[in-house]
Amino acid sequence: MTHPSIIRPGEHAAYSPAKMGKSTIFESPRLLVGLNAFEPGQEHALHAHGGQDKVYHVIEGEGLFLLEGKELAMTAGDVLVAPEGVLHGVRNSGSGRLLVLAILAPAPHR
Amino acid sequence: MTHPSIIRPGEHAAYSPAKMGKSTIFESPRLLVGLNAFEPGQEHALHAHGGQDKVYHVIEGEGLFLLEGKELAMTAGDVLVAPEGVLHGVRNSGSGRLLVLAILAPAPHR
Repeated sequence: MTHPSIIRPGEHAAYSPAKMGKSTIFESPRLLVGLNAFEPGQEHALHAHGGQDKVYHVIEGEGLFLLEGKELAMTAGDVLVAPEGVLHGVRNSGSGRLLVLAILAPAPHR
Repeated sequence: MTHPSIIRPGEHAAYSPAKMGKSTIFESPRLLVGLNAFEPGQEHALHAHGGQDKVYHVIEGEGLFLLEGKELAMTAGDVLVAPEGVLHGVRNSGSGRLLVLAILAPAPHR
């Protein structure tokens, strides 16, 4: 699968009133590039990935990111790395939408 | 290696008058998160990575990204994926600096 075209993350956001929305921009065995879309108040509960590193990159909005027991207030442009095995989570604590690029390496098994 | 703190990519940029500057934000066997910093006119010549996928995310500025023989004009916020084996390159065609987040999975061997 190749993507010879420009990706504008905001166009791929999948917000849902029920819970955090997920969408996938690119996937290979090595890499998953996805989007996590949070309406105000929505969250992604604390979890960890065995053998996978995750990079968060805030595209729009602001939220609280939990990592290793710390609570970090992040806003558009900020990056956070959750190395494999480290508990992490996200909560949209703002009044607007929160869109986060989430990159996992390697990609999860299906 | 863990990074329990927020990363602001612009603070890690390593511009150089001689050639494209590189810096590393995070590295594990699974993942390399780095920055490519281009002064006006600087470029990263066409190349490919065997067995590694690359994600580009433009942080600031604008430039021409080459992928599979196509020339794509990208600006801040845009994302491009260069899957393993696909020729890609970058040229700062603008009048200002170009800063690009470059994510490689898995990380290159040292």
